[in-house]
Amino acid sequence: SASGYDLRSLIIGSEGTLGVITELTLRLYGRPQAVAAGACFFQSLEGAVETVIETDLMGIPMARIELIDEVQIRGVNLHADLGCPELPALFVEFHGSDAGVAEQAELFGSIVKGNGGGEYRWATAVEDRNRLWRARHDAFYACKALRPGAEGYVTDACVPISRLAECVLETRRDIEAADLMAPMVGHAGDGNFHLTILIDPASADELSKARQLADRLAERTLSMGGTVTGEHGVGLGKRKHMMAEHGEAWAIMADIKRALDPLDILNPGKIVADPAWRSSSRS
Amino acid sequence: SASGYDLRSLIIGSEGTLGVITELTLRLYGRPQAVAAGACFFQSLEGAVETVIETDLMGIPMARIELIDEVQIRGVNLHADLGCPELPALFVEFHGSDAGVAEQAELFGSIVKGNGGGEYRWATAVEDRNRLWRARHDAFYACKALRPGAEGYVTDACVPISRLAECVLETRRDIEAADLMAPMVGHAGDGNFHLTILIDPASADELSKARQLADRLAERTLSMGGTVTGEHGVGLGKRKHMMAEHGEAWAIMADIKRALDPLDILNPGKIVADPAWRSSSRS
Repeated sequence: SASGYDLRSLIIGSEGTLGVITELTLRLYGRPQAVAAGACFFQSLEGAVETVIETDLMGIPMARIELIDEVQIRGVNLHADLGCPELPALFVEFHGSDAGVAEQAELFGSIVKGNGGGEYRWATAVEDRNRLWRARHDAFYACKALRPGAEGYVTDACVPISRLAECVLETRRDIEAADLMAPMVGHAGDGNFHLTILIDPASADELSKARQLADRLAERTLSMGGTVTGEHGVGLGKRKHMMAEHGEAWAIMADIKRALDPLDILNPGKIVADPAWRSSSRS
Repeated sequence: SASGYDLRSLIIGSEGTLGVITELTLRLYGRPQAVAAGACFFQSLEGAVETVIETDLMGIPMARIELIDEVQIRGVNLHADLGCPELPALFVEFHGSDAGVAEQAELFGSIVKGNGGGEYRWATAVEDRNRLWRARHDAFYACKALRPGAEGYVTDACVPISRLAECVLETRRDIEAADLMAPMVGHAGDGNFHLTILIDPASADELSKARQLADRLAERTLSMGGTVTGEHGVGLGKRKHMMAEHGEAWAIMADIKRALDPLDILNPGKIVADPAWRSSSRS
Protein backbone atom coordinates (compact mmCIF):
# COMPACT_ATOMS: atom_id res chain seq x y z
CA SER A 1 0.00 0.00 0.00
CA ALA A 2 1.08 3.55 -0.76
CA SER A 3 -1.99 4.92 0.96
CA GLY A 4 -1.23 7.42 3.71
CA TYR A 5 1.33 7.20 6.47
CA ASP A 6 2.79 3.82 7.45
CA LEU A 7 1.17 3.55 10.88
CA ARG A 8 1.88 -0.16 11.10
CA SER A 9 5.64 0.40 11.13
CA LEU A 10 5.19 3.29 13.54
CA ILE A 11 3.32 1.10 16.05
CA ILE A 12 5.71 -1.86 15.71
CA GLY A 13 8.49 -1.30 18.23
CA SER A 14 6.74 1.64 19.91
CA GLU A 15 6.64 -0.45 23.09
CA GLY A 16 3.08 0.49 23.99
CA THR A 17 3.86 4.22 24.10
CA LEU A 18 1.58 5.13 21.16
CA GLY A 19 -1.22 2.63 21.61
CA VAL A 20 -2.12 -0.87 22.63
CA ILE A 21 -2.23 -3.61 20.01
CA THR A 22 -5.47 -5.53 20.50
CA GLU A 23 -5.62 -7.46 17.24
CA LEU A 24 -3.00 -8.65 14.79
CA THR A 25 -3.21 -10.18 11.33
CA LEU A 26 -0.20 -12.32 10.56
CA ARG A 27 1.07 -13.24 7.13
CA LEU A 28 1.97 -16.90 6.84
CA TYR A 29 4.87 -18.16 4.77
CA GLY A 30 5.09 -21.62 3.28
CA ARG A 31 7.45 -24.14 4.80
CA PRO A 32 10.52 -24.56 2.61
CA GLN A 33 10.87 -27.74 0.58
CA ALA A 34 14.29 -28.45 2.06
CA VAL A 35 16.04 -27.30 5.24
CA ALA A 36 19.66 -27.95 6.15
CA ALA A 37 21.23 -26.86 9.43
CA GLY A 38 24.78 -27.22 10.60
CA ALA A 39 27.47 -26.07 12.99
CA CYS A 40 31.06 -25.21 12.11
CA PHE A 41 33.92 -24.25 14.38
CA PHE A 42 36.76 -21.78 13.84
CA GLN A 43 40.24 -21.29 15.22
CA SER A 44 39.48 -17.59 15.74
CA LEU A 45 36.46 -15.39 16.42
CA GLU A 46 37.62 -13.24 13.51
CA GLY A 47 37.41 -16.21 11.13
CA ALA A 48 33.81 -16.83 12.16
CA VAL A 49 32.77 -13.19 11.72
CA GLU A 50 34.58 -12.86 8.37
CA THR A 51 32.68 -15.94 7.19
CA VAL A 52 29.39 -14.18 7.94
CA ILE A 53 30.47 -11.06 6.06
CA GLU A 54 31.65 -13.00 3.01
CA THR A 55 28.50 -15.13 2.96
CA ASP A 56 26.46 -11.93 2.94
CA LEU A 57 28.60 -10.38 0.18
CA MET A 58 28.23 -13.55 -1.93
CA GLY A 59 24.47 -13.13 -1.72
CA ILE A 60 23.93 -16.58 -0.23
CA PRO A 61 20.51 -16.45 1.43
CA MET A 62 20.93 -17.34 5.10
CA ALA A 63 17.72 -18.39 6.81
CA ARG A 64 19.64 -18.26 10.09
CA ILE A 65 23.27 -17.63 10.94
CA GLU A 66 24.22 -17.44 14.60
CA LEU A 67 27.65 -16.55 15.95
CA ILE A 68 28.49 -18.25 19.24
CA ASP A 69 31.81 -17.55 20.91
CA GLU A 70 33.88 -20.18 22.70
CA VAL A 71 32.79 -19.02 26.16
CA GLN A 72 29.16 -19.48 25.19
CA ILE A 73 29.97 -22.87 23.63
CA ARG A 74 31.42 -23.97 26.98
CA GLY A 75 28.11 -23.00 28.59
CA VAL A 76 26.13 -24.85 25.92
CA ASN A 77 28.22 -27.97 26.54
CA LEU A 78 27.61 -27.70 30.31
CA HIS A 79 23.90 -27.06 29.90
CA ALA A 80 22.90 -29.27 26.97
CA ASP A 81 25.73 -31.81 26.83
CA LEU A 82 26.23 -31.05 23.15
CA GLY A 83 29.90 -32.07 23.13
CA CYS A 84 30.95 -29.22 20.84
CA PRO A 85 34.62 -28.27 20.41
CA GLU A 86 35.14 -25.21 22.62
CA LEU A 87 35.85 -22.86 19.72
CA PRO A 88 34.01 -19.91 18.16
CA ALA A 89 31.16 -21.32 16.11
CA LEU A 90 28.58 -20.52 13.50
CA PHE A 91 25.23 -22.31 13.61
CA VAL A 92 23.56 -21.92 10.22
CA GLU A 93 20.39 -22.92 8.42
CA PHE A 94 19.58 -22.79 4.71
CA HIS A 95 16.08 -23.00 3.22
CA GLY A 96 15.03 -23.70 -0.33
CA SER A 97 14.65 -26.48 -2.81
CA ASP A 98 16.76 -29.63 -2.53
CA ALA A 99 19.12 -28.38 -5.23
CA GLY A 100 19.19 -24.84 -3.87
CA VAL A 101 20.02 -25.88 -0.32
CA ALA A 102 22.79 -28.21 -1.53
CA GLU A 103 24.26 -25.41 -3.62
CA GLN A 104 24.14 -22.90 -0.76
CA ALA A 105 25.72 -25.37 1.65
CA GLU A 106 28.56 -26.12 -0.74
CA LEU A 107 29.32 -22.43 -1.35
CA PHE A 108 29.15 -21.72 2.36
CA GLY A 109 31.55 -24.62 3.04
CA SER A 110 34.16 -23.09 0.76
CA ILE A 111 33.90 -19.75 2.61
CA VAL A 112 34.24 -21.53 5.97
CA LYS A 113 37.38 -23.31 4.76
CA GLY A 114 38.87 -20.06 3.49
CA ASN A 115 38.50 -18.55 6.97
CA GLY A 116 40.15 -21.36 8.90
CA GLY A 117 36.97 -23.16 9.80
CA GLY A 118 36.89 -26.90 10.33
CA GLU A 119 34.70 -29.58 8.86
CA TYR A 120 31.01 -29.29 9.56
CA ARG A 121 28.18 -31.76 9.59
CA TRP A 122 24.75 -31.05 8.20
CA ALA A 123 21.67 -31.96 10.14
CA THR A 124 18.70 -32.43 7.85
CA ALA A 125 16.59 -34.63 10.17
CA VAL A 126 14.12 -32.55 12.17
CA GLU A 127 15.21 -33.95 15.55
CA ASP A 128 18.89 -33.20 14.87
CA ARG A 129 18.08 -29.68 13.79
CA ASN A 130 15.91 -29.15 16.82
CA ARG A 131 18.71 -30.31 19.12
CA LEU A 132 21.10 -27.86 17.50
CA TRP A 133 18.74 -24.91 17.76
CA ARG A 134 17.63 -25.75 21.27
CA ALA A 135 21.25 -25.38 22.31
CA ARG A 136 21.20 -21.87 20.80
CA HIS A 137 17.81 -20.92 22.20
CA ASP A 138 18.81 -22.00 25.69
CA ALA A 139 21.86 -19.72 25.54
CA PHE A 140 20.74 -17.65 28.52
CA TYR A 141 20.44 -20.73 30.74
CA ALA A 142 23.68 -22.08 29.34
CA CYS A 143 25.34 -18.85 30.46
CA LYS A 144 24.10 -19.38 33.97
CA ALA A 145 25.66 -22.85 33.97
CA LEU A 146 29.01 -21.11 33.49
CA ARG A 147 28.70 -19.25 36.77
CA PRO A 148 26.00 -20.69 39.04
CA GLY A 149 24.25 -18.02 41.08
CA ALA A 150 25.22 -15.23 38.69
CA GLU A 151 22.75 -12.90 36.99
CA GLY A 152 23.02 -11.99 33.32
CA TYR A 153 23.30 -8.35 32.21
CA VAL A 154 22.36 -8.53 28.53
CA THR A 155 23.44 -6.13 25.76
CA ASP A 156 22.01 -5.75 22.24
CA ALA A 157 24.47 -4.08 19.86
CA CYS A 158 23.83 -3.98 16.11
CA VAL A 159 26.17 -2.53 13.48
CA PRO A 160 26.34 -2.51 9.68
CA ILE A 161 27.63 -5.94 8.74
CA SER A 162 30.76 -4.37 7.19
CA ARG A 163 31.77 -3.22 10.71
CA LEU A 164 30.78 -6.42 12.53
CA ALA A 165 34.25 -7.97 12.79
CA GLU A 166 35.76 -4.75 14.12
CA CYS A 167 32.96 -4.25 16.65
CA VAL A 168 33.03 -7.83 17.90
CA LEU A 169 36.82 -7.93 18.27
CA GLU A 170 37.07 -4.56 20.05
CA THR A 171 34.31 -5.68 22.39
CA ARG A 172 36.11 -8.92 23.10
CA ARG A 173 39.26 -6.99 24.06
CA ASP A 174 37.17 -4.74 26.27
CA ILE A 175 35.62 -7.72 28.09
CA GLU A 176 39.09 -9.11 28.76
CA ALA A 177 40.41 -5.76 29.99
CA ALA A 178 37.42 -5.44 32.35
CA ASP A 179 38.07 -8.96 33.69
CA LEU A 180 34.42 -9.93 33.23
CA MET A 181 32.89 -13.16 31.97
CA ALA A 182 30.58 -12.27 29.11
CA PRO A 183 29.71 -15.00 26.61
CA MET A 184 28.63 -13.72 23.20
CA VAL A 185 25.92 -14.87 20.80
CA GLY A 186 24.90 -13.04 17.69
CA HIS A 187 22.32 -12.99 14.94
CA ALA A 188 25.37 -12.30 12.89
CA GLY A 189 23.63 -12.07 9.52
CA ASP A 190 21.88 -8.94 10.85
CA GLY A 191 25.05 -7.45 12.41
CA ASN A 192 23.41 -7.99 15.81
CA PHE A 193 25.13 -9.61 18.80
CA HIS A 194 24.53 -9.97 22.53
CA LEU A 195 26.77 -10.24 25.54
CA THR A 196 25.44 -11.87 28.68
CA ILE A 197 27.66 -10.24 31.28
CA LEU A 198 27.65 -12.65 34.23
CA ILE A 199 27.71 -10.77 37.50
CA ASP A 200 27.31 -11.57 41.17
CA PRO A 201 23.98 -9.91 42.06
CA ALA A 202 25.38 -8.99 45.49
CA SER A 203 28.37 -7.14 44.06
CA ALA A 204 27.90 -3.42 43.42
CA ASP A 205 31.39 -3.36 41.90
CA GLU A 206 30.55 -6.03 39.31
CA LEU A 207 27.28 -4.29 38.41
CA SER A 208 29.14 -1.04 37.94
CA LYS A 209 31.77 -2.69 35.73
CA ALA A 210 29.04 -4.38 33.68
CA ARG A 211 27.25 -1.07 33.15
CA GLN A 212 30.47 0.61 32.05
CA LEU A 213 31.17 -2.22 29.61
CA ALA A 214 27.63 -1.94 28.23
CA ASP A 215 27.93 1.85 27.89
CA ARG A 216 31.25 1.58 26.06
CA LEU A 217 29.67 -0.99 23.74
CA ALA A 218 26.76 1.36 23.05
CA GLU A 219 29.18 4.19 22.20
CA ARG A 220 31.26 1.89 19.99
CA THR A 221 28.12 0.74 18.19
CA LEU A 222 26.99 4.30 17.50
CA SER A 223 30.44 5.37 16.32
CA MET A 224 30.21 2.59 13.72
CA GLY A 225 26.81 3.74 12.44
CA GLY A 226 24.90 1.11 14.39
CA THR A 227 22.14 1.12 16.98
CA VAL A 228 22.13 0.59 20.75
CA THR A 229 19.32 -1.92 20.38
CA GLY A 230 18.98 -4.31 17.47
CA GLU A 231 15.91 -6.12 18.76
CA HIS A 232 15.34 -5.82 22.53
CA GLY A 233 14.01 -2.28 22.52
CA VAL A 234 14.61 0.90 24.51
CA GLY A 235 12.43 0.60 27.60
CA LEU A 236 14.03 2.51 30.46
CA GLY A 237 17.64 1.34 30.26
CA LYS A 238 18.47 2.55 26.76
CA ARG A 239 16.76 5.95 26.99
CA LYS A 240 20.00 7.63 27.95
CA HIS A 241 21.47 6.75 24.52
CA MET A 242 18.54 8.05 22.45
CA MET A 243 19.83 11.60 21.99
CA ALA A 244 23.25 10.32 20.86
CA GLU A 245 21.67 7.84 18.47
CA HIS A 246 18.88 9.94 16.99
CA GLY A 247 19.85 13.59 17.45
CA GLU A 248 17.05 15.83 16.20
CA ALA A 249 14.97 12.81 15.26
CA TRP A 250 14.49 12.10 18.95
CA ALA A 251 12.57 15.39 19.29
CA ILE A 252 10.39 14.31 16.36
CA MET A 253 9.62 11.08 18.21
CA ALA A 254 8.63 13.17 21.22
CA ASP A 255 6.34 15.27 19.00
CA ILE A 256 4.64 12.10 17.77
CA LYS A 257 4.29 10.81 21.32
CA ARG A 258 2.65 14.06 22.44
CA ALA A 259 0.33 14.08 19.41
CA LEU A 260 -0.93 10.52 19.93
CA ASP A 261 -0.82 10.43 23.74
CA PRO A 262 -1.36 14.00 24.95
CA LEU A 263 -2.21 12.80 28.47
CA ASP A 264 0.96 10.63 28.68
CA ILE A 265 -0.99 7.57 29.79
CA LEU A 266 0.41 5.01 27.34
CA ASN A 267 3.38 3.20 28.95
CA PRO A 268 4.59 6.53 30.34
CA GLY A 269 8.28 7.14 30.82
CA LYS A 270 9.47 4.81 28.07
CA ILE A 271 11.54 5.66 24.97
CA VAL A 272 11.03 9.42 24.73
CA ALA A 273 9.72 10.62 28.07
CA ASP A 274 12.19 11.70 30.70
CA PRO A 275 12.90 14.96 32.53
CA ALA A 276 15.59 15.97 30.02
CA TRP A 277 13.13 15.49 27.18
CA ARG A 278 10.41 17.44 28.94
CA SER A 279 12.63 20.47 29.51
CA SER A 280 14.07 20.42 25.99
CA SER A 281 10.66 19.97 24.40
CA ARG A 282 10.12 22.06 21.32
CA SER A 283 6.49 22.96 21.90
CA SER B 1 17.14 -1.38 14.82
CA ALA B 2 14.58 -1.54 17.60
CA SER B 3 15.55 1.94 18.78
CA GLY B 4 12.66 4.37 18.97
CA TYR B 5 9.92 4.98 16.43
CA ASP B 6 10.40 3.95 12.81
CA LEU B 7 10.60 7.43 11.30
CA ARG B 8 12.09 6.12 8.08
CA SER B 9 8.93 4.18 7.23
CA LEU B 10 6.82 7.14 8.32
CA ILE B 11 8.62 9.50 5.90
CA ILE B 12 8.60 7.03 3.00
CA GLY B 13 5.35 7.56 1.15
CA SER B 14 4.42 10.70 3.10
CA GLU B 15 4.61 12.61 -0.20
CA GLY B 16 6.45 15.59 1.24
CA THR B 17 3.73 16.32 3.81
CA LEU B 18 5.94 15.59 6.86
CA GLY B 19 9.30 16.81 5.63
CA VAL B 20 11.61 17.07 2.67
CA ILE B 21 14.11 14.30 2.00
CA THR B 22 17.48 15.95 1.35
CA GLU B 23 19.78 12.95 1.65
CA LEU B 24 19.30 9.22 1.15
CA THR B 25 21.49 6.22 1.89
CA LEU B 26 20.68 3.31 -0.36
CA ARG B 27 21.40 -0.33 0.33
CA LEU B 28 22.85 -2.10 -2.66
CA TYR B 29 22.08 -5.69 -3.53
CA GLY B 30 24.36 -7.97 -5.49
CA ARG B 31 23.45 -8.85 -9.05
CA PRO B 32 22.12 -12.40 -9.25
CA GLN B 33 24.33 -15.08 -10.75
CA ALA B 34 21.64 -16.07 -13.24
CA VAL B 35 18.60 -14.27 -14.64
CA ALA B 36 15.94 -15.80 -16.85
CA ALA B 37 13.02 -13.85 -18.28
CA GLY B 38 10.13 -15.05 -20.36
CA ALA B 39 6.64 -14.41 -21.63
CA CYS B 40 3.76 -16.86 -21.70
CA PHE B 41 0.27 -16.44 -23.12
CA PHE B 42 -3.06 -17.76 -21.88
CA GLN B 43 -6.45 -18.53 -23.40
CA SER B 44 -8.13 -16.61 -20.55
CA LEU B 45 -7.30 -13.75 -18.20
CA GLU B 46 -8.38 -16.02 -15.36
CA GLY B 47 -5.75 -18.60 -16.30
CA ALA B 48 -3.04 -15.96 -16.15
CA VAL B 49 -4.14 -14.65 -12.74
CA GLU B 50 -4.54 -18.17 -11.29
CA THR B 51 -0.98 -18.89 -12.41
CA VAL B 52 0.26 -15.95 -10.35
CA ILE B 53 -1.67 -17.10 -7.28
CA GLU B 54 -0.43 -20.70 -7.55
CA THR B 55 3.15 -19.57 -8.12
CA ASP B 56 2.91 -17.51 -4.94
CA LEU B 57 1.38 -20.40 -2.99
CA MET B 58 4.15 -22.73 -4.19
CA GLY B 59 6.70 -20.33 -2.71
CA ILE B 60 8.51 -19.87 -6.01
CA PRO B 61 10.43 -16.60 -5.66
CA MET B 62 9.36 -14.27 -8.47
CA ALA B 63 11.79 -11.45 -9.13
CA ARG B 64 9.16 -9.95 -11.44
CA ILE B 65 5.78 -11.18 -12.61
CA GLU B 66 3.69 -8.84 -14.72
CA LEU B 67 0.16 -9.46 -15.90
CA ILE B 68 -0.66 -7.90 -19.26
CA ASP B 69 -4.13 -8.29 -20.73
CA GLU B 70 -4.84 -8.87 -24.42
CA VAL B 71 -5.85 -5.23 -24.99
CA GLN B 72 -2.52 -4.05 -23.64
CA ILE B 73 -0.69 -6.70 -25.70
CA ARG B 74 -2.34 -5.27 -28.83
CA GLY B 75 -0.93 -1.87 -27.84
CA VAL B 76 2.52 -3.35 -27.22
CA ASN B 77 2.46 -4.94 -30.66
CA LEU B 78 1.49 -1.62 -32.27
CA HIS B 79 4.07 0.37 -30.34
CA ALA B 80 7.06 -1.97 -30.16
CA ASP B 81 6.37 -4.41 -32.99
CA LEU B 82 6.87 -7.31 -30.61
CA GLY B 83 4.66 -9.72 -32.58
CA CYS B 84 3.07 -11.25 -29.48
CA PRO B 85 -0.08 -13.38 -29.71
CA GLU B 86 -2.96 -11.08 -28.70
CA LEU B 87 -3.80 -13.03 -25.56
CA PRO B 88 -3.53 -12.32 -21.81
CA ALA B 89 0.13 -12.72 -20.87
CA LEU B 90 2.52 -13.03 -17.98
CA PHE B 91 6.00 -11.56 -18.32
CA VAL B 92 8.20 -13.12 -15.64
CA GLU B 93 11.76 -13.02 -14.40
CA PHE B 94 13.58 -15.38 -12.04
CA HIS B 95 16.84 -14.62 -10.22
CA GLY B 96 19.24 -16.98 -8.52
CA SER B 97 21.95 -19.50 -9.21
CA ASP B 98 22.01 -21.36 -12.52
CA ALA B 99 20.46 -24.42 -10.89
CA GLY B 100 17.96 -22.38 -8.89
CA VAL B 101 16.70 -20.43 -11.89
CA ALA B 102 16.33 -23.60 -13.96
CA GLU B 103 14.37 -25.24 -11.15
CA GLN B 104 12.07 -22.23 -10.70
CA ALA B 105 11.45 -21.96 -14.43
CA GLU B 106 10.55 -25.64 -14.69
CA LEU B 107 8.11 -25.49 -11.76
CA PHE B 108 6.57 -22.32 -13.14
CA GLY B 109 6.17 -23.97 -16.54
CA SER B 110 4.12 -26.77 -15.02
CA ILE B 111 1.79 -24.24 -13.34
CA VAL B 112 1.38 -22.35 -16.63
CA LYS B 113 0.44 -25.56 -18.42
CA GLY B 114 -2.08 -26.45 -15.70
CA ASN B 115 -3.84 -23.13 -16.27
CA GLY B 116 -4.17 -23.38 -20.03
CA GLY B 117 -1.04 -21.39 -20.85
CA GLY B 118 0.92 -22.02 -24.02
CA GLU B 119 4.58 -22.66 -24.60
CA TYR B 120 6.93 -19.97 -23.52
CA ARG B 121 10.46 -19.08 -24.49
CA TRP B 122 13.11 -17.99 -22.03
CA ALA B 123 15.29 -15.02 -22.76
CA THR B 124 18.59 -15.22 -20.92
CA ALA B 125 20.60 -12.89 -23.18
CA VAL B 126 20.61 -9.35 -21.82
CA GLU B 127 19.42 -7.76 -25.08
CA ASP B 128 16.46 -10.17 -25.37
CA ARG B 129 15.45 -9.53 -21.77
CA ASN B 130 15.75 -5.79 -22.27
CA ARG B 131 13.52 -5.94 -25.34
CA LEU B 132 10.89 -7.85 -23.36
CA TRP B 133 10.91 -5.47 -20.43
CA ARG B 134 11.02 -2.37 -22.59
CA ALA B 135 7.73 -3.52 -24.07
CA ARG B 136 6.32 -3.64 -20.54
CA HIS B 137 7.86 -0.36 -19.41
CA ASP B 138 6.52 1.48 -22.45
CA ALA B 139 3.00 0.29 -21.62
CA PHE B 140 1.67 3.82 -21.23
CA TYR B 141 2.85 4.81 -24.71
CA ALA B 142 1.64 1.51 -26.08
CA CYS B 143 -1.80 2.37 -24.71
CA LYS B 144 -1.78 5.63 -26.58
CA ALA B 145 -1.03 3.74 -29.79
CA LEU B 146 -4.36 1.98 -29.29
CA ARG B 147 -6.29 5.23 -29.52
CA PRO B 148 -4.23 8.09 -30.98
CA GLY B 149 -5.07 11.43 -29.39
CA ALA B 150 -6.54 9.86 -26.26
CA GLU B 151 -5.40 10.63 -22.72
CA GLY B 152 -4.84 7.90 -20.14
CA TYR B 153 -6.72 7.94 -16.81
CA VAL B 154 -4.65 5.57 -14.66
CA THR B 155 -5.85 3.52 -11.68
CA ASP B 156 -3.77 1.71 -9.01
CA ALA B 157 -5.75 -1.03 -7.26
CA CYS B 158 -4.04 -3.52 -4.97
CA VAL B 159 -5.70 -6.45 -3.21
CA PRO B 160 -4.56 -9.48 -1.21
CA ILE B 161 -3.30 -11.93 -3.80
CA SER B 162 -5.99 -14.43 -2.81
CA ARG B 163 -8.62 -11.97 -4.13
CA LEU B 164 -6.70 -10.93 -7.24
CA ALA B 165 -8.53 -13.14 -9.75
CA GLU B 166 -11.94 -12.03 -8.47
CA CYS B 167 -10.96 -8.36 -8.50
CA VAL B 168 -9.44 -8.48 -11.99
CA LEU B 169 -12.38 -10.36 -13.51
CA GLU B 170 -15.05 -8.13 -11.94
CA THR B 171 -13.15 -5.09 -13.13
CA ARG B 172 -12.93 -6.51 -16.63
CA ARG B 173 -16.73 -6.98 -16.71
CA ASP B 174 -17.17 -3.43 -15.44
CA ILE B 175 -14.95 -2.03 -18.22
CA GLU B 176 -17.03 -3.87 -20.80
CA ALA B 177 -20.32 -2.70 -19.29
CA ALA B 178 -19.06 0.91 -19.33
CA ASP B 179 -18.05 0.56 -22.98
CA LEU B 180 -14.58 1.99 -22.26
CA MET B 181 -11.20 0.94 -23.60
CA ALA B 182 -8.95 0.30 -20.59
CA PRO B 183 -5.92 -1.96 -21.10
CA MET B 184 -4.66 -3.61 -17.92
CA VAL B 185 -1.15 -4.25 -16.62
CA GLY B 186 -0.34 -5.55 -13.18
CA HIS B 187 2.52 -6.21 -10.83
CA ALA B 188 0.54 -9.31 -10.21
CA GLY B 189 2.89 -10.84 -7.64
CA ASP B 190 2.00 -7.92 -5.35
CA GLY B 191 -1.75 -8.07 -6.05
CA ASN B 192 -1.38 -4.68 -7.77
CA PHE B 193 -2.80 -3.82 -11.20
CA HIS B 194 -3.43 -0.71 -13.27
CA LEU B 195 -5.99 0.26 -15.84
CA THR B 196 -5.16 2.97 -18.36
CA ILE B 197 -8.63 4.19 -19.23
CA LEU B 198 -8.30 5.79 -22.68
CA ILE B 199 -10.50 8.81 -23.00
CA ASP B 200 -11.01 11.65 -25.43
CA PRO B 201 -9.74 14.72 -23.52
CA ALA B 202 -12.48 16.84 -25.11
CA SER B 203 -15.29 14.57 -23.90
CA ALA B 204 -16.78 15.42 -20.51
CA ASP B 205 -18.91 12.31 -20.81
CA GLU B 206 -15.92 10.00 -21.20
CA LEU B 207 -14.10 11.66 -18.30
CA SER B 208 -17.16 11.20 -16.14
CA LYS B 209 -17.47 7.53 -17.12
CA ALA B 210 -13.76 6.98 -16.42
CA ARG B 211 -14.09 8.55 -12.96
CA GLN B 212 -17.07 6.38 -12.16
CA LEU B 213 -15.19 3.26 -13.27
CA ALA B 214 -12.19 4.27 -11.13
CA ASP B 215 -14.42 4.94 -8.11
CA ARG B 216 -16.16 1.58 -8.45
CA LEU B 217 -12.73 -0.07 -8.68
CA ALA B 218 -11.61 1.72 -5.50
CA GLU B 219 -14.72 0.53 -3.68
CA ARG B 220 -14.24 -3.02 -4.96
CA THR B 221 -10.63 -2.97 -3.85
CA LEU B 222 -11.53 -1.83 -0.33
CA SER B 223 -14.32 -4.38 -0.03
CA MET B 224 -11.71 -7.06 -0.70
CA GLY B 225 -9.33 -5.79 2.00
CA GLY B 226 -7.10 -3.98 -0.45
CA THR B 227 -5.92 -0.41 -0.91
CA VAL B 228 -6.90 2.35 -3.33
CA THR B 229 -3.24 2.93 -4.15
CA GLY B 230 -0.65 0.18 -4.30
CA GLU B 231 2.24 2.38 -5.39
CA HIS B 232 1.21 5.68 -6.99
CA GLY B 233 0.23 7.47 -3.80
CA VAL B 234 -2.66 9.60 -2.59
CA GLY B 235 -1.89 13.13 -3.75
CA LEU B 236 -5.13 14.99 -4.35
CA GLY B 237 -7.13 12.47 -6.37
CA LYS B 238 -7.26 9.64 -3.83
CA ARG B 239 -7.94 11.77 -0.74
CA LYS B 240 -11.67 11.17 -1.06
CA HIS B 241 -11.13 7.45 -0.39
CA MET B 242 -8.95 7.88 2.72
CA MET B 243 -11.75 7.82 5.27
CA ALA B 244 -13.22 4.66 3.75
CA GLU B 245 -9.83 2.97 3.65
CA HIS B 246 -8.40 4.00 7.01
CA GLY B 247 -11.35 4.89 9.24
CA GLU B 248 -10.08 6.15 12.58
CA ALA B 249 -6.48 5.72 11.47
CA TRP B 250 -6.97 8.63 9.10
CA ALA B 251 -7.51 10.93 12.09
CA ILE B 252 -4.26 9.57 13.57
CA MET B 253 -2.50 10.50 10.34
CA ALA B 254 -3.93 13.99 10.68
CA ASP B 255 -2.62 14.18 14.27
CA ILE B 256 0.85 13.27 13.04
CA LYS B 257 0.65 15.83 10.25
CA ARG B 258 -0.33 18.57 12.72
CA ALA B 259 2.44 17.56 15.13
CA LEU B 260 5.22 17.64 12.53
CA ASP B 261 3.89 20.48 10.38
CA PRO B 262 1.86 22.75 12.65
CA LEU B 263 1.99 25.62 10.12
CA ASP B 264 0.76 23.36 7.26
CA ILE B 265 3.59 24.43 4.96
CA LEU B 266 4.79 20.99 3.83
CA ASN B 267 3.03 20.04 0.58
CA PRO B 268 -0.22 21.39 2.00
CA GLY B 269 -3.52 19.87 0.99
CA LYS B 270 -2.18 16.38 0.25
CA ILE B 271 -3.16 13.06 1.87
CA VAL B 272 -4.81 14.28 5.08
CA ALA B 273 -5.65 17.92 4.63
CA ASP B 274 -9.03 18.85 3.25
CA PRO B 275 -12.03 20.76 4.53
CA ALA B 276 -13.74 17.59 5.76
CA TRP B 277 -10.65 16.70 7.75
CA ARG B 278 -10.37 20.17 9.22
CA SER B 279 -13.94 20.16 10.47
CA SER B 280 -13.72 16.62 11.88
CA SER B 281 -10.34 17.29 13.51
CA ARG B 282 -10.09 15.83 16.99
CA SER B 283 -8.13 18.65 18.62
